[in-house]
Amino acid sequence: MNIHPDTPSVIVDTAVMKRNIAAFAKLAELRKVALRPHAKTHKIPEIAQLQLATGAVGVTVAKLSEAEVMADHGIDDLFIAYPIVTDTKVERAIKLGQRVNLMVGVDSLQGALGLSAAAVRHGTTVKVRLEIDTGLGRTGVLYDEAVALACRIVSLPGFKFCGIYTFRGNFMQGKPTLDILRAGVEEGELMVDLAERIRNAGVAVRDVSVGSTPTAASAATVEGVTEIRPGTYVFQDRMQAALGVCRLEDCAATVRVTVVSRPAPDRMIIDGGSKTFATDVLPGVQPLNLQGFGHLREAPHAILERLSEEHGIVRISAFDRFEAGDTLHVIPNHICSTINLHNRIYVQERGTYRSVTVSGRGMVT
Amino acid sequence: MNIHPDTPSVIVDTAVMKRNIAAFAKLAELRKVALRPHAKTHKIPEIAQLQLATGAVGVTVAKLSEAEVMADHGIDDLFIAYPIVTDTKVERAIKLGQRVNLMVGVDSLQGALGLSAAAVRHGTTVKVRLEIDTGLGRTGVLYDEAVALACRIVSLPGFKFCGIYTFRGNFMQGKPTLDILRAGVEEGELMVDLAERIRNAGVAVRDVSVGSTPTAASAATVEGVTEIRPGTYVFQDRMQAALGVCRLEDCAATVRVTVVSRPAPDRMIIDGGSKTFATDVLPGVQPLNLQGFGHLREAPHAILERLSEEHGIVRISAFDRFEAGDTLHVIPNHICSTINLHNRIYVQERGTYRSVTVSGRGMVT
Repeated sequence: MNIHPDTPSVIVDTAVMKRNIAAFAKLAELRKVALRPHAKTHKIPEIAQLQLATGAVGVTVAKLSEAEVMADHGIDDLFIAYPIVTDTKVERAIKLGQRVNLMVGVDSLQGALGLSAAAVRHGTTVKVRLEIDTGLGRTGVLYDEAVALACRIVSLPGFKFCGIYTFRGNFMQGKPTLDILRAGVEEGELMVDLAERIRNAGVAVRDVSVGSTPTAASAATVEGVTEIRPGTYVFQDRMQAALGVCRLEDCAATVRVTVVSRPAPDRMIIDGGSKTFATDVLPGVQPLNLQGFGHLREAPHAILERLSEEHGIVRISAFDRFEAGDTLHVIPNHICSTINLHNRIYVQERGTYRSVTVSGRGMVT
Repeated sequence: MNIHPDTPSVIVDTAVMKRNIAAFAKLAELRKVALRPHAKTHKIPEIAQLQLATGAVGVTVAKLSEAEVMADHGIDDLFIAYPIVTDTKVERAIKLGQRVNLMVGVDSLQGALGLSAAAVRHGTTVKVRLEIDTGLGRTGVLYDEAVALACRIVSLPGFKFCGIYTFRGNFMQGKPTLDILRAGVEEGELMVDLAERIRNAGVAVRDVSVGSTPTAASAATVEGVTEIRPGTYVFQDRMQAALGVCRLEDCAATVRVTVVSRPAPDRMIIDGGSKTFATDVLPGVQPLNLQGFGHLREAPHAILERLSEEHGIVRISAFDRFEAGDTLHVIPNHICSTINLHNRIYVQERGTYRSVTVSGRGMVT
C-alpha cells in the first residue's frame, strides 16, 4: 500500500541502501574477511535480513535487548559487542544463547567470572570474544594487559574463547584524524599483532574482528584480520561523507521536513529539532568541522544552525524563496542516533512508500 | 506489582515529582495566572492528568501527534504551541478540535489563511493564538510586525483569536544570561506591552501566555500576564539546577545505570550513552558551563565526560572504588530530550516500581 509520510519522517531510498549493502559485501568478499554488520544503525530486523542475504555472516548489536529483538525476528547469529556484567543480563544472555548462535563481549576478569559461573550453573557454554582497547579509551581491556587476561579467561569453565575485537572509532582520543585509511591499517595491525602474541602464549585466537564504516575497508587489507563490523554504511550519512568514505549521493536515509515558518528574510524554521535529528555529532567540532546539523538537499548552501526540541532554525539567504509549507530533505550528521529517535521509517521503492517499525529503537538494556 | 528496572532506565521519584507539580500550581495560584504545563517534558498522559488534578487549566504540547495522544487518553483542553501549516496537519487539527477544546499556534498570514479556509470548509471555528518572537529567533512573528498581523488575522472567517504567546527561552540569542528573574520580567513586560498595543488597534486579546520553567515565576509577577507554560519543572534537571531554578534534590528523574567496565584507574564506563542521555545541552557551553553530560548522585565529583551511543565514559579518581556491576544514578543535563529516548519510565513510590509507557515519545509529526 502506498502511503504519504507526514513530516518530519525518515525516508530510506531502497536502491541506494541496497547499493551500500552490496558494496561492503563485495569489499569483504574481495578481502576474504567475514562481514558482520552492526545493526545499531538501523535497528530493523528486516534490514538485518537483507544484509544476511547479501553476504553477511551474522549481525552485531550493542545491547542484549537489541539482540533479543533480532532473535525474535529470526536472526540466529548474533554478536553482542558489549560487556555483559549484571546477574540479570548474564541470565538473559545464557537464555538467548540457548536459542541462537550467540557470542558476547568480555573485557574484564570480573565480568568473565560471572558469565563462566552462570554457564556452568546452566550446564551450557558461552562463546566470548575479548574486547581490546586500541586507543579509543572506552571499554576494552588495556592493550598491554590483553595477553594476560586472554590467558586467564581461556581456561574458565563453560567458556568458549572465540577471539578478540575492537572498536577504535575514527576519532582517536586526543588525536583526531581524517586519515582514515591509515587509521584502519593501524587498527588492523594492532589487532593482528596482539592476536599473534596471544597465540604465542598458547591461546587459540580464531576471530580478529575490527573496523567501523570508515576504517573497515583499510583494516580489511591487513593480513590476519578475519572480520569487519561496519554499521553506518547501510545508510551512510553526512559525517561519513565528510570523512570521504562516501558521497552525499550515497546517503540512503534523509529526513523529510516541512518549512513551518519564514519569519525573517534570513531565517526559516523546519519541523524537526533535537527530537528528530541527533545532536551527538555537532557542528564546528574538529576534525570534521561540519556546518550545521545536516545537509539540506534542496538548499545545500543553507545552514541548519540551531535545534530546539521540535524546531530546526535554518540560516538562509534573503534571495531564497522557501516559504511555509515547502518540503525539504535533510541528510543528518549522524544517521544512527537519528534513526533511534524515530518509531518508524518510510522505505521508498519505485515511488511507493512502506512504513517499517524500528523494532530495536530504545532497546538500551 | 513491584518490578526491578534493568539498566539503563529512567526512574521517577513520585514524591519529588508531586512536590514540583504542587509548587508551580501554588505559584500560579498566588500570581493569579493560569498554569498550562508543557507536556513535551514527560510525554505521558498519566502525568498530564496529575498536573490537571493539581491546578493546571489545560496542557501545552509542541506537535499535533502529541496532542492526539493526549486526547486519546482523555485530556480535553490542549494548546499546540506550534504553527500548523500543511494541508494534512490542518485537516488533523480541525478533526482534533471537534473532539477536544483545542487552541493552535499561528505565526504567519499564510498559515492563518490555510487554517481559516479549512475551518470554513468544515463549518467550524479554529481557536488560535498568535506566536510572538520576543528575542529567541525561532518561530513567531517578529515583534514589530505583530500588531499588523493580529489585525489582519482577527477578521479571518472561521477564526477565534484568543491571544498571544511566546517562548523566549532563558538563553537569549547572542546574549546568554543567567539573570533568570530579570529575563522573565522582561518577557512578561514585552508581551503585556504588545497586548496593549494590539488592543489599542481594536483587537481583543484575552490570553497573554508566557514563560518556561526558569522564567515562569518572574514573568508571572508582571500585571497583565494571564498564563504560564513551564514544562521541565515536573522533573527538573541539572540545567535548571545550574540556572538556580531548583536544587539537585528537586530533580525527580534520574537515569539508573550500571558500571560495565573499569578498564583504567581513572576511568569507568556506564551502560548509557547518547541513546540514553540527551546530547542537546552540552558540557562546557556558556553560560551554564556544565561539566559533563550529567550529575552522578553517588559520585558528585565524577565527570560523565564522553558519550558514544551505548557507552558513557566517566572520569573518576584512582581512589574511587567503583567496579563493574555497581549501580549509579545520573541526573541528566536535560530531562526533556532524555525522556524522549526511552520507551518507558519507572515510577517509584514507597519503594515499589511501576512501568509507565512514554506514549508521546517519538510523536514528532
